[in-house]
Amino acid sequence: MRPFPSHATAFAARIGAKHPIVLAPMLAHTTPRLCAAAANAGVVAFEGAGQLGKDVLVSRIRETQAMLNAGAVFGVNLFVPSGFYTDPSSWTEPQAAAVEVARERYEGYLRELSGEAAGTAAPSLSREEHQAVFSGQVDALLETGVKLVSFHFGWPDAAEAGRLREAGATLQGCATTVEEARWLVDQGADAIIAQGAEAGGHRGTFIDAQDYRRALVEVVPLVRGIADAVDVPVIAAGGIMRGGDIRAVLEAGASAAQLGTAFLSCPECGTSAMHREALLGYGGEGRDASDPLPTVVTLGYTGKPARGLQTDRALRMADLEGALPNCFNGMLAGRTLQAAALKQGRKDAAYLWAGSGYARSRAMPAAALVETLVAEAQSSQYEG
Amino acid sequence: MRPFPSHATAFAARIGAKHPIVLAPMLAHTTPRLCAAAANAGVVAFEGAGQLGKDVLVSRIRETQAMLNAGAVFGVNLFVPSGFYTDPSSWTEPQAAAVEVARERYEGYLRELSGEAAGTAAPSLSREEHQAVFSGQVDALLETGVKLVSFHFGWPDAAEAGRLREAGATLQGCATTVEEARWLVDQGADAIIAQGAEAGGHRGTFIDAQDYRRALVEVVPLVRGIADAVDVPVIAAGGIMRGGDIRAVLEAGASAAQLGTAFLSCPECGTSAMHREALLGYGGEGRDASDPLPTVVTLGYTGKPARGLQTDRALRMADLEGALPNCFNGMLAGRTLQAAALKQGRKDAAYLWAGSGYARSRAMPAAALVETLVAEAQSSQYEG
Repeated sequence: MRPFPSHATAFAARIGAKHPIVLAPMLAHTTPRLCAAAANAGVVAFEGAGQLGKDVLVSRIRETQAMLNAGAVFGVNLFVPSGFYTDPSSWTEPQAAAVEVARERYEGYLRELSGEAAGTAAPSLSREEHQAVFSGQVDALLETGVKLVSFHFGWPDAAEAGRLREAGATLQGCATTVEEARWLVDQGADAIIAQGAEAGGHRGTFIDAQDYRRALVEVVPLVRGIADAVDVPVIAAGGIMRGGDIRAVLEAGASAAQLGTAFLSCPECGTSAMHREALLGYGGEGRDASDPLPTVVTLGYTGKPARGLQTDRALRMADLEGALPNCFNGMLAGRTLQAAALKQGRKDAAYLWAGSGYARSRAMPAAALVETLVAEAQSSQYEG
Repeated sequence: MRPFPSHATAFAARIGAKHPIVLAPMLAHTTPRLCAAAANAGVVAFEGAGQLGKDVLVSRIRETQAMLNAGAVFGVNLFVPSGFYTDPSSWTEPQAAAVEVARERYEGYLRELSGEAAGTAAPSLSREEHQAVFSGQVDALLETGVKLVSFHFGWPDAAEAGRLREAGATLQGCATTVEEARWLVDQGADAIIAQGAEAGGHRGTFIDAQDYRRALVEVVPLVRGIADAVDVPVIAAGGIMRGGDIRAVLEAGASAAQLGTAFLSCPECGTSAMHREALLGYGGEGRDASDPLPTVVTLGYTGKPARGLQTDRALRMADLEGALPNCFNGMLAGRTLQAAALKQGRKDAAYLWAGSGYARSRAMPAAALVETLVAEAQSSQYEG
């Protein structure tokens, strides 16, 4: 057995976890049951708050906490509104036109799926409303005593960060470039999540977010670059599916490995049946070897760059990629479409988040997966 | 020590190699010296013929052959013209317009680099001229007695394939989807090279080449899908840099692992200094951790989708991605620009091919690299 490297065991010890492994926050997928199972198995479990309102978030956190064993490490991830909101009046004319085309396509798709299209462009929140949601989420964390918080899409303003700090919380930031990591540490981040290009779900890129392609750095070089540039621990995310992958990023300089996609096939996860089948399609019973779906980073799913299985929806939107602004708020119609696609079982019209390593998914309970990951990582003689 | 799986050793034995490892053809990078060093070390070495004329190709092959030990396995890769030529008259109006914009940008770039722009759009060859080049290449293989041939961009017509067959050659085809693999086997391919999305250089996609994004399948699911669908050996390509990667694709069902990028840092390789520095930038002396370049698949380099380091040139062309036709022949200006960028040492304006695993490059002589790869793959206990 090769134990984890000492910088990784030191980080796990500091944060109170048994293993230097993190369950990634996956809004709409991670559940209280999954978080509790992973945390009780010794990893650091995160729930994603996304844009949930305060009361819903409090209730999710309390539900999770009720299932946690003593000493289990549980945290919550917040979306920083300043990192995703853009004022539509700041869009260029071609960007606004591209959003309009995207909306029309979503509505056409929706008409095809459900026979109705009216009202698909749900009202967008203003910057102030987004910030109010965020403040409510911070209230929820304070009220429930959550002591571990990570941020996606940047870093909150000093007042909100200060409220969490005063309550004794550890704060982590997500970087997709070395420049972002440096900036986050300047803001006071206690650790950096290095989101490699392989990661499923939304890209956290917030400096030059429009040029998100420049921030599609593979996890190993990203970890190396960030670990060299900052003095806080680095948590590696992206494409990590098995023990050997964990070993590889820890040896590249990461203090912990964050896994999302690998947990999507756990029975405790809130993954839809369609999503689950697609993830397990290459290795499981339902394997459909003649139709392998690659993953892709696209603006065509939600309006912000995100990696998922490359369904027809991404292909149909490909010609708009260069023109769309990088923002959620023009694209709420896309979410209505997602709900309809899930309801109708239309894989082609859905977004199905997946990191680029998803074909190595394994359907096993979270505790068994954690045990397997640790055994693989510690027994590995893999030097490659 | 864990030896290679038996299906892999059987394939290597059948083809006459010591190891189930293939040096990928990398036109303009692989050299007679590199091919000979790799082949003499026991791997299957390929030279890329690209669009070289017959006499040049004969001379390169003879130069390589003169350095080969008895029993060393050497092959040549040909570009199939029917898979890359498209008649400009078949372009849609928006495609022709996008090519014009691309040309203008290339010329603007070139003016910026060298102060001259005239004559950058080199004359394009007709389909018949491309086919004449290809026939000359087949002549070159017959004349020099090359017995191992692989094809990129599809499969040649029956007459050309027949000439090689009659001479006793083994013929391999490159697939980026299961559908392409099935079609190639129907044409008589003896083995399939499964080009995963991670692979550097030009994508071989030839069925629905315009929709090349759909054929960006990661190497492990691609190998699994193809190995299930056809009865010939599968050679895995894409992202394979170290012994553990070789082990992983062999365990996924591949009979051999094809590596290109891993050999770009060998001293015997014809890599430019600029390219070499960029590849080694994360791990070597010249490491520039604050400026990590991701890789990207783009039409913006040569007019056909290819993976390389994501330089400014790819970013400047990103808005045209959806509109450009997938073809070489409209984009010769791009090659003139490449030559100027290399001459001026302008990384931003160049294309620098790289597979997505390039950050794990190691600068060592080809024979030492082969020895290291084999030792890593055989000593690995990696089950992930």
